[in-house]
Amino acid sequence: MGNYTLTVLPGDGIGPEIVKQAVQVLQIIGERYHHTFTFQHGLVGVAAIEAEGEAISEATLALCQQSHAILFGAVGALPTYYGQQPKVKPEQALFKLRKGLQFFANLRPVQTYAELLNASTIKPEVLDGTDLVVVRELTGGLYYGHLEPPVPGKPSEIRQTEHGLEAIDTLLYTEAEIERIIRMAFEIARGRRKKVTSVDKANVLSSSVLWRRVAERVAADYPDITFEHLLVDACAMHLIRRPTAFDVIVTENLFGDILTDEASMLAGSMGMLPSASLGTRRTEHGQFGLYEPIHGSAPDIAGQDKANPIATILSAALLLRYSLGLEKEAYAIETAVSHVIKAGYRTEDLKEEGKTLVGTQEMGQRIVDAL
Amino acid sequence: MGNYTLTVLPGDGIGPEIVKQAVQVLQIIGERYHHTFTFQHGLVGVAAIEAEGEAISEATLALCQQSHAILFGAVGALPTYYGQQPKVKPEQALFKLRKGLQFFANLRPVQTYAELLNASTIKPEVLDGTDLVVVRELTGGLYYGHLEPPVPGKPSEIRQTEHGLEAIDTLLYTEAEIERIIRMAFEIARGRRKKVTSVDKANVLSSSVLWRRVAERVAADYPDITFEHLLVDACAMHLIRRPTAFDVIVTENLFGDILTDEASMLAGSMGMLPSASLGTRRTEHGQFGLYEPIHGSAPDIAGQDKANPIATILSAALLLRYSLGLEKEAYAIETAVSHVIKAGYRTEDLKEEGKTLVGTQEMGQRIVDAL
Ligand SMILES: CC(C)[C@H](C(=O)O)[C@@H](O)C(=O)O
Ligand SMILES: CC(C)[C@H](C(=O)O)[C@@H](O)C(=O)O
Repeated sequence: MGNYTLTVLPGDGIGPEIVKQAVQVLQIIGERYHHTFTFQHGLVGVAAIEAEGEAISEATLALCQQSHAILFGAVGALPTYYGQQPKVKPEQALFKLRKGLQFFANLRPVQTYAELLNASTIKPEVLDGTDLVVVRELTGGLYYGHLEPPVPGKPSEIRQTEHGLEAIDTLLYTEAEIERIIRMAFEIARGRRKKVTSVDKANVLSSSVLWRRVAERVAADYPDITFEHLLVDACAMHLIRRPTAFDVIVTENLFGDILTDEASMLAGSMGMLPSASLGTRRTEHGQFGLYEPIHGSAPDIAGQDKANPIATILSAALLLRYSLGLEKEAYAIETAVSHVIKAGYRTEDLKEEGKTLVGTQEMGQRIVDAL
Repeated sequence: MGNYTLTVLPGDGIGPEIVKQAVQVLQIIGERYHHTFTFQHGLVGVAAIEAEGEAISEATLALCQQSHAILFGAVGALPTYYGQQPKVKPEQALFKLRKGLQFFANLRPVQTYAELLNASTIKPEVLDGTDLVVVRELTGGLYYGHLEPPVPGKPSEIRQTEHGLEAIDTLLYTEAEIERIIRMAFEIARGRRKKVTSVDKANVLSSSVLWRRVAERVAADYPDITFEHLLVDACAMHLIRRPTAFDVIVTENLFGDILTDEASMLAGSMGMLPSASLGTRRTEHGQFGLYEPIHGSAPDIAGQDKANPIATILSAALLLRYSLGLEKEAYAIETAVSHVIKAGYRTEDLKEEGKTLVGTQEMGQRIVDAL
């Protein structure tokens, strides 16, 4: 019964084909549940660089602002593109969106499907029951050192010295930045299994010492939540040793980047994993957010109807849940995906003997049919 | 036939009991192969803090310098120790040794034993044939920001600002630092399967852009070696998806810390994995180095005869190989370890039905007997 404006940014590589399937799913949801979704498309990545000279233009960023949420595909080109030392890289679109729209929290849920337990390289009995979410800080840390305008005291540069070149990056966090992401992790844990694991490297980094201190202060406000600290190196180990022991993992930007890619292996394929990036701005129905699969643009298989659209379709479900407050509709998509997986349909990335191999479009269609 | 002086630094927790077994193995090697090993013991960690007020004293560092190699156990205390905000932390010993003695390269080989394939949470068919070594840069990057003397332009601190506290760490690499570690990786690859994977985050960090540039320049000197770049997030994924695809992985300090802990899961237990830290100094017979298990001090099981001494015993083998040039003797230890594993002896960490559970001392004795 609602009217919603969604910005769609398909991007590079497999972006357009997977986003197309997710948009189709949203359209069916609109029909079934009587919502009107207005889709406004924008350019990001290589297409934007070619047409507008930037990975994402100010106009497109403004378009995003004027919508309830953003559905994002992927950006990034083949290695040969970077070999030519392009002045603007397609990845800049991600940085500008995250930083420009202040999406400070990146939620990456990892759940296993009983039918896909075998697709992982990890033993099924270890995986069974895994249900965690990594809450990754997304606008601070070692990232954004060379964005405009430069952050004072936060260099990221290669410079000439008497003894040759040297390069520097700066890991900076303020108390306020740490506090808001930790608080979000605790709020999320309240709606889940009530456990928060804060990951840092407090035996080496000053930023981690502050992180730990703030985390402890915030934890005191949530006596109902079990809380623990874990060093990032130990976490990289425990993620594959006892994945079911985790509920909410909260960590800084780069640790989150590494740990979520590792955690994606628990699900058998990155092609199954959605993400939500949220900020401070609220809309009428929830939080303004950006939704994207955690995988990249996979330019090597682009246009071949091989990509798994599920991560993007599940990202659309998160969009409905967090930005539009449409829990029932979100759940319907998730159930449809489960159904299709149960029915034995698999894209290339999850190909398995005895299962039905389908292309991007057919997978999308099957999910639409299951709705 | 040689005379060798070895510095032994047992340290905290299980350190003393595992080092004791490794020393015993070296003694037997001495008898069998007619070498004289003189062991000089030093204090590190909590014991050193209590006795000398420092995690490692200048005198002990000097002792290290006057030897052919260092055998190190582990440092680190129970969490309650850190809760009391101690002025000196036991970990400082590691930093002072690495930085003070300029051990810029940390080699962490990961090999799987056919008999232990089942001990990992990763499927045996994925693991089978894994034989990789991570070459971790050990004296630069985000580490050492607050060591004395401070590095100019490299702050690591928590500071008060108008808007509350903020914390900063600095990731700094010079061309020369990158070049020497990359070169070492290529040299090591020459003696192995001739493949180098350089891991960075060049799509975000300036230090990684320089890293990649230097790596490419060095690679040009090794046309016989297959060379590839991999982003750290992708590496965290591929390590558990296709571990056999790796030979030599070279990366910066913190990435190496995270990736080696993750890679240790391939071997079933950290209790099996040795490491060697090497620098620029050469001795008569090889390179001056520090040898230690990759696991920590495990204070929770200290003194209970439960710890696996194999990682330390295999570290002693690396010591013989790299610092003393005693390849035959190193190989003898490695063979003895394989033999005992084949014979079905297991410590607590690798406990398995149908195998013989043994304590730290008995495991050490079995290896001595197998020699
Ligand atoms: C493309 C890259 C800059 C990005 C990141 O590091 O954040 C990606 O790895 C991700 O996780 O979204
Ligand atoms: C104890 C800690 C400071 C150390 C490190 O981070 O280097 C450890 O994790 C290691 O890998 O040796």
